Amino acid sequence: MKKAGIIGGIGPASTLDYYNSVISGCMRKINDGNYPEIVINSVNMTEMMSYVTAGRLDKLAALLVRAVTELFQAGAQFAAIASNTPHIVFGEVSARSPIPLISIVDTTCAYVKHMDLQRVLVIGTLFTMNSGLYSTALEKYGVSAIAPTADEQKEIYSLFFPNLENGLVVPGDKQKMLALINGIIRRENAGTLLLGCTELPLMIRPGDIDTVLIDTTRIHIDAIVDYMTGNKYAG
Amino acid sequence: MKKAGIIGGIGPASTLDYYNSVISGCMRKINDGNYPEIVINSVNMTEMMSYVTAGRLDKLAALLVRAVTELFQAGAQFAAIASNTPHIVFGEVSARSPIPLISIVDTTCAYVKHMDLQRVLVIGTLFTMNSGLYSTALEKYGVSAIAPTADEQKEIYSLFFPNLENGLVVPGDKQKMLALINGIIRRENAGTLLLGCTELPLMIRPGDIDTVLIDTTRIHIDAIVDYMTGNKYAG
Repeated sequence: MKKAGIIGGIGPASTLDYYNSVISGCMRKINDGNYPEIVINSVNMTEMMSYVTAGRLDKLAALLVRAVTELFQAGAQFAAIASNTPHIVFGEVSARSPIPLISIVDTTCAYVKHMDLQRVLVIGTLFTMNSGLYSTALEKYGVSAIAPTADEQKEIYSLFFPNLENGLVVPGDKQKMLALINGIIRRENAGTLLLGCTELPLMIRPGDIDTVLIDTTRIHIDAIVDYMTGNKYAG
Repeated sequence: MKKAGIIGGIGPASTLDYYNSVISGCMRKINDGNYPEIVINSVNMTEMMSYVTAGRLDKLAALLVRAVTELFQAGAQFAAIASNTPHIVFGEVSARSPIPLISIVDTTCAYVKHMDLQRVLVIGTLFTMNSGLYSTALEKYGVSAIAPTADEQKEIYSLFFPNLENGLVVPGDKQKMLALINGIIRRENAGTLLLGCTELPLMIRPGDIDTVLIDTTRIHIDAIVDYMTGNKYAG
């Protein structure tokens, strides 16, 4: 089994999900009693988000290149960034990384294309939504992406902090989020909702929304498990 | 804040506890919004335990020295092994480690001494109990340790696998464990119960047993947080 590297801490709650799910996924697939080797490099999310907010994508890329180089030095044979937002500099980080990186955006877009899904509403952090991280990538795969309006993006993102980013789902926040998203889905006639943030699946569960639900975290974890256990990587 | 290294995966459930608790502990203490940097090197518990079972302590030490060296190479400034059992070779690993290591045994014994606790019943894995890992260390601190009989040790350890080691508490197993331990406490007139295994606090909670309860995981985590945030390390 390949030794995995995970850039984590963005936020800590989804890092726990990656850690648990990669271990159980590998053990189910290989089933010889061995535990997979995983190195997690948990970075300072506050420092990282300060570069995103200030538009200093050079500093964001430098932080991630350092983190993945440290994973390589700790013996990781490949790595993944356990968060959507930092993927806005994935191309540069991947080019400067000493080990292969598995992109959450690429694996998700390949999945959406494979499932032949249409009119995909993308929600995530403000930066994921307004950078076109997913919409640009989806269009490369021939899938049309729908973005919330600028005001809706702000309203969605306001429901992330401080609770959801720390892994806590406040019922009132969840109600507001579902009402907001249901409104956009009806207006845009969207058939698919893409949860473009690794914390969103904590709040929006299967059955909560009447569309196909794309959980980028689960797709990313499956791709990591496949790569570790020797199956092809679809991205 | 110092960057922490954690040798984890022994088992994964307690690694999650260390990760969560070190992050929240540091953030409460420093309170400037920054997240601590942590590297987790999650090893193959099955490989590690095979060396313990076979009495190959040389191979156990080599695995841990490699793991801590990788943490150093990933930028960790100190490290901790998130499990009691591997501490049977702590001295050798610490001597060969490029960075300081915080021992769960030393920090726990210092705590027990500081609290002036008496007649400490030590339970843990078979290897922790029959190696005298804690009893030898406690005696250095002038505290008398009580061990279960050989048969009781086997019975206690049989309740670890497969569920508790994977973070699952089966009610029937818990009842058996509490009955067994209560019997030993009464017979030995023990005033303190030391949970010498990082998974035991999942099963034995405050109030379950009518003695002082020593949670080695919590003491270890507190020592790690103190060291990271610049407070003295009591070990």
